[in-house]
Order: sequence, then structure tokens, then C-alpha cells
Amino acid sequence: MVKIGLLGLGTVGSGVCEILSEKKSAIEEQTKKTVEISKILVNDLEKNRNPIVDRKVLTDNPSDILDDPDIDIVVELIGGIEPAHTYITRALENGKHVVTANKAVLSHDFLGLTNLAKKNNRGILFEASVAGGIPIIKPLKELIKFNKIKEIKGILNGTTNFILSKMIEEGLDFKEALVLARKVGFAEADPTDDIEGYDAARKISILSSIAFGYNVTFEDVDCRGITSISAFDIDFFKKLGLTIKLVGSAYSNDLDFDASVEPVLLNTNSIMANVNDAFNIVSIDGDVVGNLQFYGQGAGKNPTGNAVVTDIIDIINGEFNPIDIERRRKPSNTPKILSNYYLRIFLESQKESDFILKTINKYKLKYRLVKGEESLVLILQNISRQEINNLIENLEIKGRSCYARINSEDYCFIQELNLESFNELVV
Amino acid sequence: MVKIGLLGLGTVGSGVCEILSEKKSAIEEQTKKTVEISKILVNDLEKNRNPIVDRKVLTDNPSDILDDPDIDIVVELIGGIEPAHTYITRALENGKHVVTANKAVLSHDFLGLTNLAKKNNRGILFEASVAGGIPIIKPLKELIKFNKIKEIKGILNGTTNFILSKMIEEGLDFKEALVLARKVGFAEADPTDDIEGYDAARKISILSSIAFGYNVTFEDVDCRGITSISAFDIDFFKKLGLTIKLVGSAYSNDLDFDASVEPVLLNTNSIMANVNDAFNIVSIDGDVVGNLQFYGQGAGKNPTGNAVVTDIIDIINGEFNPIDIERRRKPSNTPKILSNYYLRIFLESQKESDFILKTINKYKLKYRLVKGEESLVLILQNISRQEINNLIENLEIKGRSCYARINSEDYCFIQELNLESFNELVV
Repeated sequence: MVKIGLLGLGTVGSGVCEILSEKKSAIEEQTKKTVEISKILVNDLEKNRNPIVDRKVLTDNPSDILDDPDIDIVVELIGGIEPAHTYITRALENGKHVVTANKAVLSHDFLGLTNLAKKNNRGILFEASVAGGIPIIKPLKELIKFNKIKEIKGILNGTTNFILSKMIEEGLDFKEALVLARKVGFAEADPTDDIEGYDAARKISILSSIAFGYNVTFEDVDCRGITSISAFDIDFFKKLGLTIKLVGSAYSNDLDFDASVEPVLLNTNSIMANVNDAFNIVSIDGDVVGNLQFYGQGAGKNPTGNAVVTDIIDIINGEFNPIDIERRRKPSNTPKILSNYYLRIFLESQKESDFILKTINKYKLKYRLVKGEESLVLILQNISRQEINNLIENLEIKGRSCYARINSEDYCFIQELNLESFNELVV
Repeated sequence: MVKIGLLGLGTVGSGVCEILSEKKSAIEEQTKKTVEISKILVNDLEKNRNPIVDRKVLTDNPSDILDDPDIDIVVELIGGIEPAHTYITRALENGKHVVTANKAVLSHDFLGLTNLAKKNNRGILFEASVAGGIPIIKPLKELIKFNKIKEIKGILNGTTNFILSKMIEEGLDFKEALVLARKVGFAEADPTDDIEGYDAARKISILSSIAFGYNVTFEDVDCRGITSISAFDIDFFKKLGLTIKLVGSAYSNDLDFDASVEPVLLNTNSIMANVNDAFNIVSIDGDVVGNLQFYGQGAGKNPTGNAVVTDIIDIINGEFNPIDIERRRKPSNTPKILSNYYLRIFLESQKESDFILKTINKYKLKYRLVKGEESLVLILQNISRQEINNLIENLEIKGRSCYARINSEDYCFIQELNLESFNELVV
């Protein structure tokens, strides 16, 4: 008999209860154990709950779980940094294994929590923290056994991907698409974490920590969201044969390390460009295996519950290894990497365009131009993220501009386009 | 110290030697063992070899490996059914673990070989046998712990995918693309196994055996290749907004089982449609996790070598479980599943089209028609694979026709097209 203490009974917690119940015999066959949820921590003991849950196991006292010597595995599903960090710490110190879906706490203290698990000879597994149902943490741990990872990137946030998909498919503006996402349950009341890219940043920090063996935290990720993308931009991308995605990516070699979340333009005829709605994808480049990509549902009760239950089975079967992320010192973040950027500016006056171009010329930047009466579009060449951030600042165009990195593999495609022919298409 | 006996030293064998040498310290760290290739079976002792290989370990006597009590793991990379089956059997009976990349032998006797390994309490791992570098066998084994798989399908053959990609990108005819594939090393001197779909059939049979828990063999897969696809068809697909792929797929529920390899039409705006050149993809539908897709290089020295070395590490670390595929009896193959098909016929005379349409009408089939002077294109609705095979037979149009299943999720897209407008576009 294995006893589980559940912290939190939201969507995922409820899914975990359902899977453990509906798949009881298969799980027993896999683990040769009976798995029982013996206690569940909730805020409100009186609230209506999923009828599958036995109300007798509910408690509002965390100590009932964290300090119960009969509980073997603590499954943390409350999210956020505190009190989750305190609870996970206490669980590990009390000799319990931990399974968590909490990207916030992991991207805050990956090193501390994984080391604490190691010290106490317990497992901490977190497949559900990144990309929902996609098995990515475990395959990544497999890969790094002898592959050196050069780059890891992906579409890691379902809310923003849903919003961008709707903007592209239905020509909606950002705000309209956000309203729609809220209506169908893909965006929360306060969508800041999603639309500003913070959620994706947490996920890429966790993936980076494993991939590169450094302690990468949320603060290491240079992060920008999708709020500045307008229907004008989407329309223009379509004309170019491109689509836009919010991409988290991290790159490393022995000298450089860079992690970012930003809008990225992709050729519509690429795998990543065709990941729509709330689906996620993770792409990994290993020195031996080459490029691998993993696609699936990035959120939802069943897919995320699937990841949590898979972790529980691995813990029971002893299939967890300590994570060794102190192997290498993290190089300093180097924003030196040069890329090509799309930059759109809504002009305040027609004269302004001369001023803007003069300023850009001062930066000695190469660019190609599409000029309308009320808007300017530039394809800027070989500019770093820091430089373009500075440029936007100096031009005082924040709030009426949008910029997006052009995926390096797809830039050759744009180079072949005759941009002059687009002059007539913009206002 | 772990001693490995290698059977075969072709491309993959050479890659395995390189990886074990170049990644020696990482592999030692992972396994806490020194891994040594102590013998390699080759046909020709005199042939020039990869300089990384110590010529002293070469032998042309299989018994030097299979009957050497010091060898722990036999890595079988000779391919084909015999003598590979005999060698694997003897290795397992002599208490050795087996790692193999051999889809032919596995799709011939999956049940026998996995049971023999179980009986001898040894591991048989075969990650490299399906989809080269993509980790798919291990994740699939993970998934079936408590997911019921409804469907598994994919682009499983790099040669045909390269040929189709070139036909689409460069407007080549099948034969021209095959010549190109040979030239760049993506097709063998005798390409039959690839272009007739046999290679993909072997792979889908292995995936099916694991996914559904039946003993699925090569003979269970209804198989058709890509040789009938012409530049005319490719051009027509493009006009429809579709692309063509050779897809292996298997479907099962408690009553029905069906496995096939055939050309399938996909919306160009889908993940699978954008898997190009020698890349592979595998798509799995689980009842809990939903749809997952795994993408990567389907062949090649390093990707396939990566899979073999990963299996070696798992064997050394004891991370292998017996495969239980006698759980369920395989339902009889049911070709009842109805699909929509593209059918193109090059006419022998103009009169022939009346005869063809009269015959099709006798079958009481619904269809939509695009009619040229020398060719007919029909979109046939709700027809089974068996029925369309019969139809082609009865019409006596083999050799001047091409038919391809339309992916069910993409059929609605075709329904919306005004096919009459295509009449002028065909000859």
C-alpha cells in the first residue's frame, strides 16, 4: 500500500483523483502496490467537490499531510512560490517523495529543491510542470546522458498560442482574442502570467536547468509577451508567408548562455508554425541525436493528470535519479547573439518616418523597408535583443510598435521576397 | 566492465563504435561501468574499416561472440530475418542481453523473441528499430502503463518521405526523385522495401504490438507503396491545398483491429504534412493523455547510433522490463473502416470514362468528379480499403491509376472546395 497526500484539489488534482480511480487495476499491475489518496489539503472544506473524492480525506491543515509518517508521496498542486516551497521542503525533510506540477516554485529554486531531495535520498519529479501531457522532462533526462544539448526551444504556453491562433484564423485583434480565450476557459481572470510570457519563461528555465546542467531561474530569462501584436501585424505576416508564435528558447555552449521568451516569426511550412490552439511543442538539438520535437496538449485535466500519475508510478517503482545540475557553472547571459527582426511602427505624423529612419541609420543597421502613410515596417538585420530593446526605448515608440524575431532558419525565405511590392498593401 | 559483442559493422555499427568512444566518460558516469566492444562480427576481415575500430576485435565467426561467456550484451545490426533470428535466439539462450535495430526480425517474430528474453530473464531492447533517433519505443511503453491506445500512426520511412518531398518541392516525377534519392544516399540499390512500403509496415507492426498488446506481425499490415504517384497527382494535390505522405497506421478497440501502410493526403497546414525529407514522425492517441507526436531523424549513423547506445545504457542500468504482449487476443483484421479516397485514372480513350463511371455507379458509390480529356479524378466517399482495391482490379486500371486515402480530419477541408473549378486545370 502506497499512501499519497495531495496538496490542492483544483482541475489537475481532480484529474489525478479520477485517473487513480479509473485506472486502479492497471496502476496496481504496474506498481504491484495499492495506491491510495489518504489526505487532500483544501482551502474550503465545505465547497462542492468532484463526487469521486471521499470528503473524509479532506483537510485544511497542511501538517496533517506533511507530518503524517504514513504518507509516502506528497503531490503538490497548489502552484505559486509560497507556501508551496515551504510545503515541498517540509515533505522532503520528513522523508517523503514529492511530485509537483508547480513551475513557479521550480523556476524559483530548482537547485535548492533538487539538492534537498538528493540529500534526503528522496525523489522529486515534475513532468507536469512543463508542457502538460507531453513527456518531456524524462526524455530530456535520458538525452543528456551522453548528448550535449545545443538548443532547446518551444511553444510552452497554451493561452498565448490559443490567442495567436485565433488572431490568425479569425483576424481578431489581441483584445478580442483574449476575450474569446477567457470565454472558452483558456485564459484566467488575470492573464498577466500568460500574455507577458512569464509562464513560458518559468518553463524554459526548468528545461534549461536540465538540458545544460546549470541552475537557471526565472530571472535568467529575458522575457517579452504578445500584447503588442495587432491585427495589422498578423495580416502582414500572412502576406509574407509567415506565422507568429510565442517561443521560449535557450541556447548554450561552453562560453555563452542565453534564455528568452519572445514573439518569433516562422515560415508557415514548418512544424512549429502548425502547432495551434492550446497545443505545445518542445524542440531539442542534441549533438548526437540531432533535432527532436515533442508535441501534445500543454494543459488540461487529463493530460496534466497523466503526467502526475506517471511520476507517481515512477516514484513507486524507484525509477528516479537525483538531478545533477551543479556539473557546470552557468556562463554569464550573453545578449550578443544577432538575429533579424520585424519592426512595425504606427506613425504619429508623416514627418516622423524621416526621424525614425535617421535614428536607425545612426545605429548603422542594415534594414529593408515597407512604407505606408500611417505605418512603417522594417526588417532589421543582425541586431541583438539588447540593441533592439534600446532602439525602441530611444525612438519612444513603445505602445505603438511591435517587434518580433525572425526564426533564423526561415530568414532566407524572407530574403527572397520583393518587399517593395508590399508598399501598396500597407496603410 | 561490460563487454559488448557487435554483430555487423555497417553505418550504424560504425556510429555505435564512434559514440561509445567519443562519449566514453559520460557513459561511464551514467553506468558506473567501463563499456568495451570486445568483438565485432564482419563478413570480410580484410575490408577497410573506420579507423576508430581496433582490427584485433574483428571476427568472421559468430560463435566467437554468441558463445563467449565474457560477453554481456549482443548488439545485432546485421538486419534481415536470417541469420539474425538464429543469432538473437542463441544470444538470449546463452544468457546475454540483446540490443537490436532489426525491424525485419522483430516484425517477423515479436512474440517469440520477447518471450524468450522474458524466459531467460534478459533484456531485449530495440529503440533503433523504429524511427531511428526518435525515442518512441520507451515512451510508448511508458504510456501504455495506464493509457489505452486508440490509434498510432506516422511517417516511418525516410526514403519515401525524401522522394515525396522532392516530387513536391521540385516537381520531379517518381523515377527522377528515386534517382536523386539514390544519388544522395537516401535510397539503396534495390529500393523495393522502402518504395513498396514494406519497411514502414515492419515498423508499424512493432509499434502496434507494443501499443495494443497483441502479437502483430508484418503479414497483419495491409501495405501499399508510392510507385503509382505521378507528377500529375502531386500538382493536383497542390491545387487542392494538400500534400501526400506514406503513412503507416494502426487502429484498435476491443472489437476491431486494422493496420495499414498507404499514401495519405493531408492538409498542408498540419504537423504531419510538414515532416520533410528523411525525417520521421509518430503520432499516438491515448485515452488519458490525448494526442502526442514525436518528431526526429528517422535514420542515419548518429541518430540511430544514439538509440542503440541509449538501449545499451538502459540494459547496463537494469532499466528494462519484460514486454507483456499476450495480454489480449488480437481481433481479426477488419477492413470495414470507411474512408474517402482520391482516385486518378489516365484514360486509354475518351470513351473509357463513360465505362468507368458506369462501373463506379454500380458500386453505389458517392463521388465528386474532375474530368479532363485524358484523365479522370474522383473523390470517392465512404469506401473501404478492400472495396477500392477491388474497384481498381475490376476496372483494369492498375498501372495507369493512383489512389490515396484522404486523412479523415482533413476531409472537411476538401468538401468545401468547388471541384468543378478544377476541370479546366487537368488535361
